Amino acid sequence: MNIAVLGSGTIGQSWCALFLAAGHRVVAYDPNPSMHQQILDSIARSQSTLEALGYSGTGCSEYLEFTTDAREAVKGSRFIQENAPEDLSLKYALYQEIEPALDSDAILLSSTSGLTLSELQNGLSNPSRLVIAHPFNPPHLIPLVEVLGNDLTRSGLVAEVLRFYESLGKVPIELKKSVPGHVANRLQAVLWQEVLHLRWAVYGPHQLFSLAAGDQGLQGFIQHLGPSFESWWSSAGQVTFDEDTKRLIERQCVDPAGPETEEMKRRRDQLICQILSIKKAT
Amino acid sequence: MNIAVLGSGTIGQSWCALFLAAGHRVVAYDPNPSMHQQILDSIARSQSTLEALGYSGTGCSEYLEFTTDAREAVKGSRFIQENAPEDLSLKYALYQEIEPALDSDAILLSSTSGLTLSELQNGLSNPSRLVIAHPFNPPHLIPLVEVLGNDLTRSGLVAEVLRFYESLGKVPIELKKSVPGHVANRLQAVLWQEVLHLRWAVYGPHQLFSLAAGDQGLQGFIQHLGPSFESWWSSAGQVTFDEDTKRLIERQCVDPAGPETEEMKRRRDQLICQILSIKKAT
Repeated sequence: MNIAVLGSGTIGQSWCALFLAAGHRVVAYDPNPSMHQQILDSIARSQSTLEALGYSGTGCSEYLEFTTDAREAVKGSRFIQENAPEDLSLKYALYQEIEPALDSDAILLSSTSGLTLSELQNGLSNPSRLVIAHPFNPPHLIPLVEVLGNDLTRSGLVAEVLRFYESLGKVPIELKKSVPGHVANRLQAVLWQEVLHLRWAVYGPHQLFSLAAGDQGLQGFIQHLGPSFESWWSSAGQVTFDEDTKRLIERQCVDPAGPETEEMKRRRDQLICQILSIKKAT
Repeated sequence: MNIAVLGSGTIGQSWCALFLAAGHRVVAYDPNPSMHQQILDSIARSQSTLEALGYSGTGCSEYLEFTTDAREAVKGSRFIQENAPEDLSLKYALYQEIEPALDSDAILLSSTSGLTLSELQNGLSNPSRLVIAHPFNPPHLIPLVEVLGNDLTRSGLVAEVLRFYESLGKVPIELKKSVPGHVANRLQAVLWQEVLHLRWAVYGPHQLFSLAAGDQGLQGFIQHLGPSFESWWSSAGQVTFDEDTKRLIERQCVDPAGPETEEMKRRRDQLICQILSIKKAT
């Protein structure tokens, strides 16, 4: 299958590596021609981990095509993973450029972390084929993909998108409601906020985000995503253990004295133990 | 070495298993005599994971002594790990009872997660030998121990406590400042708050806390620690990317274009990959 990857920064490069490793042909687009080499370097770097995870198509960079023409990239592709910068006007310009060239059954998957689906939909004359499919750094390794459609989305499309990511070995989760920042990044954001609030001088979130930030480092990351984080922080919730919250929690727990709890403890301990052994050895 | 464990709930039982596995003699105290059997059961359950982690003294429950007399428990023990319920009046009563029986060089280590060091110090006539040493569930497996002394603490004592936990294979961290909830639990708390705020219907924090809660399950957990969580939530920080915060972050990051960054990415990817393989197999 042909998959188009639009925007070849850190995220786009990682998607390219994954799609190729899963045995697909990839057409990557970036306005900057020097990104071609960067994609190839990134694919080479990710080869050993993808192989270790059991992907058989690693090293197949001969199935990668690169173009600086976005329309060219989307022609003949069913799935289009869009990773343009988190700037609505740039995304709109890109959508406007590619929309006339899309196949009739093409599905547009936006990796956006900071923008909402309805904002993005405004950039298309036919928004029914646009879905948010938000990965986590690095996308070729982290299984989670947050998938979000809404009332404007073509019926059945989200299910198809979930199957697509499952076929790649991912664990896609359908979000039932649009929340700025989706879910997992908001959780990471409140965690980071408290780290900063405590002035906690340790590696950890700072360093992880820095690794995700590309060559501009954390300074570039904050410039790029800082406003998103600040908006998630200011809209983060305050909760108390009221009756409603207690009911929510209890609904999700198994009988604390039952056999399922014992089995979960056993599994938890085994996982911790194995992770500790790995960390010691790495 | 003799180690006393005061209070034999989930946390105390787990400390017993660890101290025994590390080759020490343990005297466990609990006012409830039926806890003796529960400690033995818990030690038996943790045996296989502790063995897998390389502890050689597992299965040595013949080195466990149990008593319902707290004074008896502390006699002749250099290190005393206190795990009484998170209730200041109960801790004070226990401290008052044991203080006259303590060896002159005895070190009192409180596992408290919700109380502060100065609160606890008020319960002793000689507060210089009390340190907070806060573990994470399950204490026999999770390496982190948060260690906190203050101006009243005997000079050199914190360093000695850090060495003690290191000798047990733990990764103790000295906290330089008293913050309600210490550090890691506050981070966990803000994460949980946002999970609850988003009404996010997944296993995860709910279930993990539930496994940590013992036979009363999450209901008991909330009754016991709910007020602590609520106070951490209400004192959680709001942050923006002001100059001060940016400087804090930048100080902790390595050169994004340097070789150290590449090496950290490699290590991150390798760890993710190995953890994924384990989770698949478990």
